[in-house]
Formats: sequence, C-alpha cells, structure tokens
Amino acid sequence: MKYAVVINREYGSGGRLIGKDVANRLGIQFYDNELIRLTADESGFSEEYVRETAEKKTVSLLYSLYMTGLPASDRLFIAQSQVIREVAEKESCVIVGGCADYVLKNMDNLVKVFIHAPFEDRVRRVQNEYNETVPDNNYKNYVTRMDKKRITYYRYFTQNKWGRAGDYNITLDSTGGINICTALIETYIRNFLKF
Amino acid sequence: MKYAVVINREYGSGGRLIGKDVANRLGIQFYDNELIRLTADESGFSEEYVRETAEKKTVSLLYSLYMTGLPASDRLFIAQSQVIREVAEKESCVIVGGCADYVLKNMDNLVKVFIHAPFEDRVRRVQNEYNETVPDNNYKNYVTRMDKKRITYYRYFTQNKWGRAGDYNITLDSTGGINICTALIETYIRNFLKF
Repeated sequence: MKYAVVINREYGSGGRLIGKDVANRLGIQFYDNELIRLTADESGFSEEYVRETAEKKTVSLLYSLYMTGLPASDRLFIAQSQVIREVAEKESCVIVGGCADYVLKNMDNLVKVFIHAPFEDRVRRVQNEYNETVPDNNYKNYVTRMDKKRITYYRYFTQNKWGRAGDYNITLDSTGGINICTALIETYIRNFLKF
Repeated sequence: MKYAVVINREYGSGGRLIGKDVANRLGIQFYDNELIRLTADESGFSEEYVRETAEKKTVSLLYSLYMTGLPASDRLFIAQSQVIREVAEKESCVIVGGCADYVLKNMDNLVKVFIHAPFEDRVRRVQNEYNETVPDNNYKNYVTRMDKKRITYYRYFTQNKWGRAGDYNITLDSTGGINICTALIETYIRNFLKF
C-alpha cells in the first residue's frame, strides 16, 4: 500500500529528526525542505517551469501568463509542490515541511503530523544541537523570528492557520522525547492504515 | 507520584470514552463534566460558595461583593473549578471537560490531551452511539450547535482559543480508533512522567 506521512513542526522542536526516524522505522523515503528544494532546482522547475509547461501546451495561455507574473517565491512554491506531488505519487514517503499537508490534501492514505515544544525547550535545542549561525548569539530572537516566518509562510500559501489540532491525525509535544514521539507516530500510522 | 490527565474533546469524538479507558488502564480516578457538576452541587458550592467563603473570611470583602454580582453560569464555573482543584490535589485522576487544562495549568505532572474527529464521523458516532434526544433528528445541526457551544464556553472562561496543538502534550484524531488512542495516550503519559 502506498501512503504518505506529512509533518509540520515548530522550529527547534526536533520534528525533522522525528520525521527521519519515522521514515527509517517504516523503511520509506524521507524528504525535507532542503531535499525538495534541491529536486525542484535540479528539475529546473523554478527557472523554467513556466516556459516548459507553456511549450507542452498542457495548460491554458491564461495560466501561463498568470505564472509568468508571479513573484519568485510563489513560483518556487509551485515548483516544490510539483516535486512533492511527484515523489508522493511514486512511492511511500515521509515529507517534512513544504506545506505538504496542503499540497497532498486530496491524496489517499495520508497521515498528518504536527510536532511542537515549549519555546524555552526549542531555544535550548537550537542552541545545543542545531548548527546555525545566529546573529549576536541571540537564540530567543532567532527562534521567535523563525516562528513568525513559518506561520506567515504557511498562511500565505495554504490560507489556513498554523498548528490547529483538528488539521492533524496526531500532534505531539516533543518534550516527551524524540524516541517516544517516533514510536507513537509509527504505532498510529500502522493502526490507522492497518498494516 | 501524583499527576493529572486533562482531556478536551470535540463533541462526538469519543473523547470521554477514551478518558475513561485511560483512567482504567492507569488505575486512577475518572471525572467528567457531569461528575464534577454533581460534586459541585453536593458541596453546595454553586448555592452557598459565596456566603461560606465570606464567613470564613478567607477572601476580601471586595472579592465576595464581586462574586455575589456574578451570573449563575460564572458562579457555577468557579464552583466546578474549585472541585477540579480539590480532586486533583487529593489523588491522580483523569478529568474530561470543565476547562481543567486551564484550571490546573500551574499544577506539576499535568498531561494535556485533545481528541477530535472529522465532522461527518462525529455526526455518525452521535447518531449511533450516543443516547441523546436530538430535535427533528437533525444530527448535523445538533453537532454544529454543540461545537459552537463548546468553543464559546472555552473562550469565555479561559480567554484561550480552542484546539491549538501547541496547548496540548498530545492531540489525536479518534478516527484511528478508540483503543489505539487510549494506548497511545497511556504510552505517552508513562514516558513523559517516567513511571
């Protein structure tokens, strides 16, 4: 059975790591934002998506005119969405970020996960475990800015609110531990999809 | 170790049942809205709370004047909150409803849970499993009204939004099954509280 697990996560919550572990335990592919972006770039999506699509005449003239007029960030989002749809079409996978819950919302066998943690715990995790260059080493500021960025990005591209429990099959506070979160998500998936 | 599990749930999600099962599996007391209300009534809280408190001189004159002027629903909420605090003080328990997450927010060893399910699933559950008298058998209307009532009640008494993932340790879509939700919550609690 083909299925997809999509994970949104607060910055510094360890959600990406949890996603990677879940993919390992289920023996399926793992994609994060970086991998999705690389694939989109390699495919020339972000540069040439509009022209190619227009050449293939698979879309209307109106649509290609519309695409040409879009800002780069919008075109990149569309390119990434295309990559997400293609990888999820091809095989079972875990996808972290990229608004994949929204992009794949009509897909069968979709499990939606949200990972969060209290602010102070996330600041601590970023400081101790992430390899980020943070201006003035002000980690609190940095996490606050990343939070805002993620919420705004999600709202802009999905028109939905960030972090509503009702939008997910399972949400977890990762303070309980990365391993236990991974185990709970795996158990939920196996029971929900019955395999 | 003394701890409390507080559960908020969408109407028709089976959250009360999950709470009861979790309490059984952990061997601790279970309280739902009805039991909390009964206890509040028996203690004479809702009728005599103000007078008694004033007689005990444990609060200021200003506070007792303030209480006397409150509408019945507010006095009832205060009485129920008092019951919730007392039962959670006495022994480990699962409490469903009553904004217990808000009432106990400063308590140690507190695990916060939210249970939800898609609208159509909840309508089906209410129709097939709940013993409710529903006007004109219009179950959709009924569930919609109950949703609004719960959201409004929660916002009024807690000043918080209903159903934000970040406010809970674990949230679950109960479509995965009552038993699996119960098992996941038990596992989370045992790992989070390390017992």
